[in-house]
Amino acid sequence: MIIPSSSIEKASDIRRDVFLRKYIYSFDEGDKSMRDLLGGKGSNLAEMTGIGIPVPFGFTITTEVCEYFVSKKAYPEEFAEQLEEKLNLLEIRTGKKLGDSKNPLLVSVRSGAAVSMPGMMDTILNLGLNDETIEGVIANTENARFAYDCYRRFVQMFGNVVLGVSHDLFEEAIEKIKEEKNVKQDTDLTADDLKKLVYDFKEIISKNSDEEFPENPLAQMKLAIEAVFNSWDNDRAKTYRKINNITGLKGTAVNVQSMVFGNMGDDSGTGVAFTRNPSTGAKEFYGEFLMNAQGEDVVAGIRTPSRIEDLKEINEAAYNQLIEIKDNLEKHYKDMQDIEFTIERGNLFLLQTRNGKRTSHAAIKIAVDLVAEGLLSKEEALLKVDAAALSQLLHPQIKKSIERNVIAKGLPASPGAACGKVVFSADDAFSWATEKDEKVILVRKETSPEDIHGMHVAQGILTSRGGMTSHAAVVARGMGKCCVAGCAEVIVNASAKKIIIGDLVINEGDRITLDGGTGEVILGSVELEEPKMSEDFKTIMDWADKVRIMKVRTNADTPKDCQVAIDFGAEGIGLCRTEHMFFDEERIPMVRKMILSKDDETRGKQLKKLKEFQKGDFVEIFKVMEGKPMTIRLLDPPLHEFLPEKEEDIRKLAEDLDTTFEDLKMTISNLHEINPMLGHRGCRLGITFPDIYRMQAQAISEAAIEVSAGGTEVNVEFEIPLVGFDTELKNLKKLVEETILSYGDSVNFNYKIGTMIEVPRACLTANELAKEADFFSFGTNDLTQMTLGFSRDDSGKFLNAYLEKGIFERDPTETIDQAGVGQLMRICIELARKEKPNFEIGICGEHGGDPQSVEFCHKIGLDYVSCSPYRVPVARLAAAQAVLKI
Amino acid sequence: MIIPSSSIEKASDIRRDVFLRKYIYSFDEGDKSMRDLLGGKGSNLAEMTGIGIPVPFGFTITTEVCEYFVSKKAYPEEFAEQLEEKLNLLEIRTGKKLGDSKNPLLVSVRSGAAVSMPGMMDTILNLGLNDETIEGVIANTENARFAYDCYRRFVQMFGNVVLGVSHDLFEEAIEKIKEEKNVKQDTDLTADDLKKLVYDFKEIISKNSDEEFPENPLAQMKLAIEAVFNSWDNDRAKTYRKINNITGLKGTAVNVQSMVFGNMGDDSGTGVAFTRNPSTGAKEFYGEFLMNAQGEDVVAGIRTPSRIEDLKEINEAAYNQLIEIKDNLEKHYKDMQDIEFTIERGNLFLLQTRNGKRTSHAAIKIAVDLVAEGLLSKEEALLKVDAAALSQLLHPQIKKSIERNVIAKGLPASPGAACGKVVFSADDAFSWATEKDEKVILVRKETSPEDIHGMHVAQGILTSRGGMTSHAAVVARGMGKCCVAGCAEVIVNASAKKIIIGDLVINEGDRITLDGGTGEVILGSVELEEPKMSEDFKTIMDWADKVRIMKVRTNADTPKDCQVAIDFGAEGIGLCRTEHMFFDEERIPMVRKMILSKDDETRGKQLKKLKEFQKGDFVEIFKVMEGKPMTIRLLDPPLHEFLPEKEEDIRKLAEDLDTTFEDLKMTISNLHEINPMLGHRGCRLGITFPDIYRMQAQAISEAAIEVSAGGTEVNVEFEIPLVGFDTELKNLKKLVEETILSYGDSVNFNYKIGTMIEVPRACLTANELAKEADFFSFGTNDLTQMTLGFSRDDSGKFLNAYLEKGIFERDPTETIDQAGVGQLMRICIELARKEKPNFEIGICGEHGGDPQSVEFCHKIGLDYVSCSPYRVPVARLAAAQAVLKI
Repeated sequence: MIIPSSSIEKASDIRRDVFLRKYIYSFDEGDKSMRDLLGGKGSNLAEMTGIGIPVPFGFTITTEVCEYFVSKKAYPEEFAEQLEEKLNLLEIRTGKKLGDSKNPLLVSVRSGAAVSMPGMMDTILNLGLNDETIEGVIANTENARFAYDCYRRFVQMFGNVVLGVSHDLFEEAIEKIKEEKNVKQDTDLTADDLKKLVYDFKEIISKNSDEEFPENPLAQMKLAIEAVFNSWDNDRAKTYRKINNITGLKGTAVNVQSMVFGNMGDDSGTGVAFTRNPSTGAKEFYGEFLMNAQGEDVVAGIRTPSRIEDLKEINEAAYNQLIEIKDNLEKHYKDMQDIEFTIERGNLFLLQTRNGKRTSHAAIKIAVDLVAEGLLSKEEALLKVDAAALSQLLHPQIKKSIERNVIAKGLPASPGAACGKVVFSADDAFSWATEKDEKVILVRKETSPEDIHGMHVAQGILTSRGGMTSHAAVVARGMGKCCVAGCAEVIVNASAKKIIIGDLVINEGDRITLDGGTGEVILGSVELEEPKMSEDFKTIMDWADKVRIMKVRTNADTPKDCQVAIDFGAEGIGLCRTEHMFFDEERIPMVRKMILSKDDETRGKQLKKLKEFQKGDFVEIFKVMEGKPMTIRLLDPPLHEFLPEKEEDIRKLAEDLDTTFEDLKMTISNLHEINPMLGHRGCRLGITFPDIYRMQAQAISEAAIEVSAGGTEVNVEFEIPLVGFDTELKNLKKLVEETILSYGDSVNFNYKIGTMIEVPRACLTANELAKEADFFSFGTNDLTQMTLGFSRDDSGKFLNAYLEKGIFERDPTETIDQAGVGQLMRICIELARKEKPNFEIGICGEHGGDPQSVEFCHKIGLDYVSCSPYRVPVARLAAAQAVLKI
Repeated sequence: MIIPSSSIEKASDIRRDVFLRKYIYSFDEGDKSMRDLLGGKGSNLAEMTGIGIPVPFGFTITTEVCEYFVSKKAYPEEFAEQLEEKLNLLEIRTGKKLGDSKNPLLVSVRSGAAVSMPGMMDTILNLGLNDETIEGVIANTENARFAYDCYRRFVQMFGNVVLGVSHDLFEEAIEKIKEEKNVKQDTDLTADDLKKLVYDFKEIISKNSDEEFPENPLAQMKLAIEAVFNSWDNDRAKTYRKINNITGLKGTAVNVQSMVFGNMGDDSGTGVAFTRNPSTGAKEFYGEFLMNAQGEDVVAGIRTPSRIEDLKEINEAAYNQLIEIKDNLEKHYKDMQDIEFTIERGNLFLLQTRNGKRTSHAAIKIAVDLVAEGLLSKEEALLKVDAAALSQLLHPQIKKSIERNVIAKGLPASPGAACGKVVFSADDAFSWATEKDEKVILVRKETSPEDIHGMHVAQGILTSRGGMTSHAAVVARGMGKCCVAGCAEVIVNASAKKIIIGDLVINEGDRITLDGGTGEVILGSVELEEPKMSEDFKTIMDWADKVRIMKVRTNADTPKDCQVAIDFGAEGIGLCRTEHMFFDEERIPMVRKMILSKDDETRGKQLKKLKEFQKGDFVEIFKVMEGKPMTIRLLDPPLHEFLPEKEEDIRKLAEDLDTTFEDLKMTISNLHEINPMLGHRGCRLGITFPDIYRMQAQAISEAAIEVSAGGTEVNVEFEIPLVGFDTELKNLKKLVEETILSYGDSVNFNYKIGTMIEVPRACLTANELAKEADFFSFGTNDLTQMTLGFSRDDSGKFLNAYLEKGIFERDPTETIDQAGVGQLMRICIELARKEKPNFEIGICGEHGGDPQSVEFCHKIGLDYVSCSPYRVPVARLAAAQAVLKI
């Protein structure tokens, strides 16, 4: 060709732009910047074509045509001519002809707006088939069954999507023929059966539609294009746009693309490949193919595909072309690509390229490598790693290759995997693990603070109730322990020591495996693999730290957890829960005596003992923290959580307390609450039992004085929980401050006094609270529960239905509900910073480790996020990505 | 006097206003408009003096002097001269002299800012007493004990308040002398004992203060004035101003007023009187007095006072003067007055006048009478009646004269009084009442919907848990039944069938009486009286209806309650709870079968039966309502509330359902929720069990069609409860709408579909919800609980402490928390009306019957309030008052 065809096109473009409107673009006329006009799919096809990738040729009808058509129910002038012109060009480029019985051009017709919209008509494949062209396909593929399967699918799809005939009618016809032929699977139908179905389908259309199935391929195309246009304004699409707030679009584009077939003989084939190893990230071409096959054959696994390297021997030119394309794609898209290709009669076509899915491990290696290769800047590389998936790297995993016998599925509450024998109580877990050295999985309806000792020794935790922020989930994440929560299919009968799942019964001592990353419960033990922390991981983390603005703290209650978190890069503690320290075996009797004491003196005696224990805890933690800021929350849970529930434990305690079982049982039952989450807890305890808060403030102060005196800096933030009224904060701030000041000149450490923001009212009156407080920390677990009015412990009953029916896009206990909870947070921050411009505000709810929520926190101006130790790297990366995304 | 002293003063005023600053005003120089300068107390004393009331004379030092003194620690120039001048005038007017041993002038010194401030120094009495003037008091009163008691009190008060000596030291000295004299009461001390105490006190001051007790009355006065000024800036006062947002005041004024004594012989006396009968409202002078006595004597009841009419015989001039004053006061203050007077040596002085407290009955009569007498406009009269107290008139009351043996006090949850025998279960209540025809009081830790049948037949309800909006309280108010809730002193042991209150044990069958207006629990039965509804009551209600803008609806679930409410003036139903209809004995088995059915078919069968019952209910209610708007809330409570709790009931149900006790118990226990308020309820039920909501929508539609066809208009508002997300509302609106439309052309009634606003998130996303809804109704019970993060069922444990410590000014479940919940309501209304300007918004929480909350609802623009039937008149009046107050 003397004058390349692309120049000719461009010249004619100029003419059109001046004199006429251009309604249709061939794939070689656009690029990805033309998304508004060509839609997402169309502009991508054009982009690929533009960089020289051999995409099956085709053209895109613009969104403007759709707009015109929808409003006027007609096409613009000149449209028909342009369509004919583009079609001619397509026939020339493919060497095929629409309606030709020897070498028929078959096309797909697809919708594609600027924003992906599942509400619209999607795809019609193999358009162009009719009773004549089918012969060409049979001849070319030498596969009549395949050809008729394409044909019947096309008629069915066309009948349903374009002509509006009910899907059920076609399915009934299939069922009928299967009955007649006495076969079970669609795949058991022969070419003749399918041929008969084509005619049955046409009859169904004839009876149930105003129009007959059009044999004329041009008529097929016209109707298909109009169906796409009309789908733009159907109810589903309108609702979808409304719900997703999609406005300002002109309409959908229509992509008409030639079909290619990998099953046209031994010089044809099809394959999938990754430009790098998606599992390890190694820079190696990785994929497989099948000759004389179509895409489904590779996926279905009926024939064993060959390794991509073997293509070289079969068709060296195609292989070399593929290698070149692979490199170009990586350069162009600056990322590892997942490609699908087809070879039709020796000619290579790319059907799809997209950024390839990969393991976290691979994601990190690829990102670091692409920077080294000069393809990406460090900032771009940071955005290539899925922060949420990072935590995969920090926990043991089920080996990829293992086949899983999944018996139930719950919420993926804490990542990692665990195998062990089923036990039904924390005590059993403890004794099995410590005395018999067994690996156990603790199975409970739900866990409570009383179960901590059992959770500590268990490999993993399975609960039938509770959500992503239930006690089990939160504590397990804190411990970096695998947990599947809210697994409603599982009926836990703890007294009979068995689990019932449908017909399956699992008894105490039976082995199960949990995958905390997927929520799967697996029967038996399967092999796990340990995590490896790579150099590349550290590199990515370093880059992230340089970019991010928000600090990352951790939620940790023990010196060990604090050390783990610091090793993961935590810059402080955002939430240290003091109550967890109360559950120690040695201490809980004192706690119980303290709670049940009838006079101040007895209570005082127990508190004095407890103080020494708490002081010891804080001394250890302060030493580990080495001056990093540390928010310590004063006692939060309702007191009845510390009391025994089981009859034998109550009996024992009654003896200890020198009272009767009946009396004690009644006292405990009187402390029971109907809605404990909204009960006598948090600062309400501090106000009704000031001695407890005073003891805690003393323990913290004395520990801080001791550690400071030893030369280690201490920065402590006293946190008052569950504040809703400034009067509460004033009252308790005074108590804490007076306690600290009672140490007079000994006070050698830095301290702040602030509050957790977890009650909606606190957000609404944040200006008043900010007057009193030195800092705020959003407790978004409780804030979410109160703002949305649902308890994480009870939401299991409807959460799945909500997610399935699309009432919730996401579980709001996992990702901050921005419109509700987020709005309260914004109000809070605005009111507080109006009062004190540089006021310190962080978040310590579980959302602090969720990347989307971290991004939101950055947007609204939080100073730090705090999350469980194992999510610290996730938060570090997410905080950096938040900076880069804005 | 040729030139009256008041003219002289006025002339000198002019001079001062021009040349000098006027720092002190005698009582005859000011009026009530000078509050800023003279303080509240000073301007009132001036006002009374100004209208010719013989108030003991005195003067007021202005707030400007305080401001000057506080900032400069000195008095302005000329102040001393002005003080001397005013003091001279006071001596002339009283005929007494400061420091005179024969006829000493004694004064009180009181602080008094423009706003009442309990944080400041209050009062010093009998200033001017010293070792010389005491002799004059003894001679004049012929009562040495009285004189020395005044003296020792003065020294003590002065020592403590002015010189800062600890109160305890004085109390110790009193205890010591009581021990020495071997007496128990202060009143047992003799004149000599008290005389000795005076000297002991002076010694205490000498030892514990830099200054001696000043014998010089002028020095006493100077120090007292300065103490008042200094109290303006003490911590307590500053805190008080900060907490109560009091700003812009200059300082406090100081009132110096001459003391008068009613115990100066048989020509002296003292009394209290109401200008009208405070109990009935009758226009009759009503009071009593004692000659040769001081105020305490009248109150203490040691001597029997005489009726006010008898004063005529003793001192006709004073009596006539009192009658004249009484009439003037009513004319001036336009209200019934409560006055205190003293006659000193034949001269009448008024010590105080204030609007008199009265019963609701009297309040209404007085308000109507004052309009008839031309003293008040109707609007002014409406503001004179305490709306909250109106409900007193609608319930039986304990006879005023009855002595009460109060054994415990809980929350006054539902007004009225009730006597009966104690029973501990709803079943017992039911069988005792229906079979034995006994009057019973149902005593429970808390009630649940299962107890409804027992509550219905009980005279009153007593619970040991729960607040003003607990189940017991809400249901009792709805039934117009007396209830004392959250009575924490009471330990209910239902299994042993006894109540324990300290050492007292009350067994089943013992009689108690409840006062739901005060929260008192009384041992035994006491006499009750029936309410009388007066013509005046109707008059006031008529006036109120003409003034108010907001509509008043009622919360009612039965035709009977609806009729009661309409008789009380309800204009519609704001909340009809459909679940109460489920608890009927005949229906509950179907409800239970429906809930526990394992397949759709069984559920469908039960729902079909239930539909007929519900339809019948609605037919009856629609007939009663005669076209008034009626909001019907679809099923709200968690399903487990409908299931039995007791073992025997579970056994019975298991038999019915043909299942085992163990299985059923496990199923029920699996339905149990940890925080049921935040659980699987409201619209969450509608979404997970659409069949239930569909059944209810059918029942309502069919009933509406039937009643409409019978010629009675029907206006029904379908209400979806607990909505937090617009997607929830969309889903269920569609369900309801489709159900209604399935009746096609039969639909002959008016309907709206809307939602209750009770989840904080609903307020924050009200614009989205308003797009879908036809109306909103604030469910402030739950909205308060979620916004403040406390459950009404559990708040009993800390609510009292919160009220006592001033953390809460008011119980937010009684009166809307404006800063928190109210702010969310404002946000909601703004967002909704931006979307739809005339959008209908009401309130159906219990706050709808609380006058302060009603006023708030008017301010923020609600269309109606809805409350329990017996509070409808309260709401009508409060809504009118809200209009008049703005």
